[in-house]
Amino acid sequence: MELTLDNVFNFSAGPAALPKPVMKQAQADFIDWNGLGTSVMEISHRSKEFIQVADESEQDLRDLLNIPDNYKVLFCQGGARAQFAAVPLNLLGDATKATYIDAGYWAESAVTEASKYCEIDVFNAKTSIDGKAAVVPAKDWKIDPEAAYVHFCPNETIDGIEISELPQTDKPIVADMSSNILSRKIDVSQYGVIYAGAQKNIGPAGICIAIVRDDLLELANDVLPSILNYKVLAEKDSMFNTPPTYAWYLSGLVFKWLKAQGGVEAMELVNKEKAALLYNAIDSSAFYRNDVHTVNRSRMNVPFQLAKPELDAKFLELADAAGLKSLKGHRAVGGMRASLYNAMSLEGVQALVSFMKDFEEKYA
Amino acid sequence: MELTLDNVFNFSAGPAALPKPVMKQAQADFIDWNGLGTSVMEISHRSKEFIQVADESEQDLRDLLNIPDNYKVLFCQGGARAQFAAVPLNLLGDATKATYIDAGYWAESAVTEASKYCEIDVFNAKTSIDGKAAVVPAKDWKIDPEAAYVHFCPNETIDGIEISELPQTDKPIVADMSSNILSRKIDVSQYGVIYAGAQKNIGPAGICIAIVRDDLLELANDVLPSILNYKVLAEKDSMFNTPPTYAWYLSGLVFKWLKAQGGVEAMELVNKEKAALLYNAIDSSAFYRNDVHTVNRSRMNVPFQLAKPELDAKFLELADAAGLKSLKGHRAVGGMRASLYNAMSLEGVQALVSFMKDFEEKYA
Repeated sequence: MELTLDNVFNFSAGPAALPKPVMKQAQADFIDWNGLGTSVMEISHRSKEFIQVADESEQDLRDLLNIPDNYKVLFCQGGARAQFAAVPLNLLGDATKATYIDAGYWAESAVTEASKYCEIDVFNAKTSIDGKAAVVPAKDWKIDPEAAYVHFCPNETIDGIEISELPQTDKPIVADMSSNILSRKIDVSQYGVIYAGAQKNIGPAGICIAIVRDDLLELANDVLPSILNYKVLAEKDSMFNTPPTYAWYLSGLVFKWLKAQGGVEAMELVNKEKAALLYNAIDSSAFYRNDVHTVNRSRMNVPFQLAKPELDAKFLELADAAGLKSLKGHRAVGGMRASLYNAMSLEGVQALVSFMKDFEEKYA
Repeated sequence: MELTLDNVFNFSAGPAALPKPVMKQAQADFIDWNGLGTSVMEISHRSKEFIQVADESEQDLRDLLNIPDNYKVLFCQGGARAQFAAVPLNLLGDATKATYIDAGYWAESAVTEASKYCEIDVFNAKTSIDGKAAVVPAKDWKIDPEAAYVHFCPNETIDGIEISELPQTDKPIVADMSSNILSRKIDVSQYGVIYAGAQKNIGPAGICIAIVRDDLLELANDVLPSILNYKVLAEKDSMFNTPPTYAWYLSGLVFKWLKAQGGVEAMELVNKEKAALLYNAIDSSAFYRNDVHTVNRSRMNVPFQLAKPELDAKFLELADAAGLKSLKGHRAVGGMRASLYNAMSLEGVQALVSFMKDFEEKYA
């Protein structure tokens, strides 16, 4: 089989593949955008042309997630790691404590950073069912009565764990949705803050979206750098500092592509189908194994192990040659990981499953 | 004259034009980079392919600026505005005071942010000579003996002022070189920290470079968000968080282009020639006016006024139609502004000067 751009599939966990039609359009418009004779990245963020990009992208995101009017949409820099500090510094107010639900690597990374700013009450939500990794049901999560907010990460890219429940609390819920935003329906009105680094389901690395309920804009700590201050960003329409305009533009193209696909509801159906296809292939084989209980399996990140780890290198080499890219598992887990974000097509997963069957037949 | 990409010239103050050969290469490689079948923005920042981009770009920048080994080169997010907070939070240590030299808008913006973290001793370096804006000579700058460092901004984009001197002090000198880095030779060993948002002389908006003397890495304040912590970034090779990989890649292409042009020394000669051409055109006309004294005129940003401000709109309209883009002056100053960063060719300045003469003949 000859590899062409149309049959190369990139399973990178992030920075991840972007939708191919978006990339083709961006390439065509790269040097001469909108007939301006320049790239969109070479014009002022305050030009009417860029303001239109910014406004449309915000409106498209609002449409896609049905974001209520009392939420601000902020386009930030520094990725989710910046939000790990921004969240406590913006939200604590006079409180000195926050509850963090720990179900994996990223939740723990958020705890490490937030611990610089307040006392963190960590609820360890990791458990196992029948020897498989799982998450304690949300009704059993203990939330400190003095917590200013409750933070959780509904999709853990490294552990391959997804949580479809919400903390049961009347405190502001803060969610790191970097790896599953726009992949499934959510009710934004249930959250205080949703943030997401772009490089998985939104756009290229270098931009991060924060969706903030507007009553939470008044609590910022004095030591918070202004570039992370939700209120400052909201008042300046995310242009307090020069925003990462090209990443913003590409994110906007992705939002338009998502709308053309039928929006988040349509993506959720495809994402279910993609994940089911791959997990079924794994479960129906004695050669492949996924160590997460079905109730908490991630639709976005599917780690899997070969029965013979000594074949890992061979698997990766042949997969790569077949156009199936970036399947190497995270170093903390080993084995393989297939990331199935919105931009991964059903065809891509079909190609992977077909490759896995062939490989098993030949080498198992 | 028919407009083509080769005779459109973009004088934007930032985000600014990038070198045309860089943009052409980036477009050609956009979707299928290095034969990977994906864009460089769709691969892991920890892949060997991206690490090579990162390493080469750092080495090229080190070569261009002759950066000594005892300086770290950090690729950051959040732009220069993030550095306005990062500088005091990284450098104050036990000190409670810093001196800021004020010669314009950006120096003052740095003061506003830094004032959140310490007492700022501001030295007002603005003066005038023969009715023209100028800067007090560096030998007369008063520096507080208790200051942890001395901050200045050697090129003010809005005021059109450039300072070619350095503070005379044995304290660490911190320079916001966002708008003139790589445009002229500097001696890095004279500085404690040099920082520069990319979107003028380096690459697209969304990446910021900090060059930090390594003895200054140990002073960070506990409340500093980790993404702004020089030591953390240095230890993680600027990959503590996912870096803005595409912006980094494009910056790397710009560095290679600069080396191919002959490096900073060669750029400085061209930049002198470009600036002289435009300032001579202004000074030899009774219709155009620049309000900065020759000793402090910026080579990078040339604000100028028409004798009849009522013709501003006409000038901008006709300039735009002639392919001379983004000449509108900053709202704080009015009139026109031509930014002549490295990516602006001598041809572009010649085209502008020729247009200005024609306009004066017809409308003055």
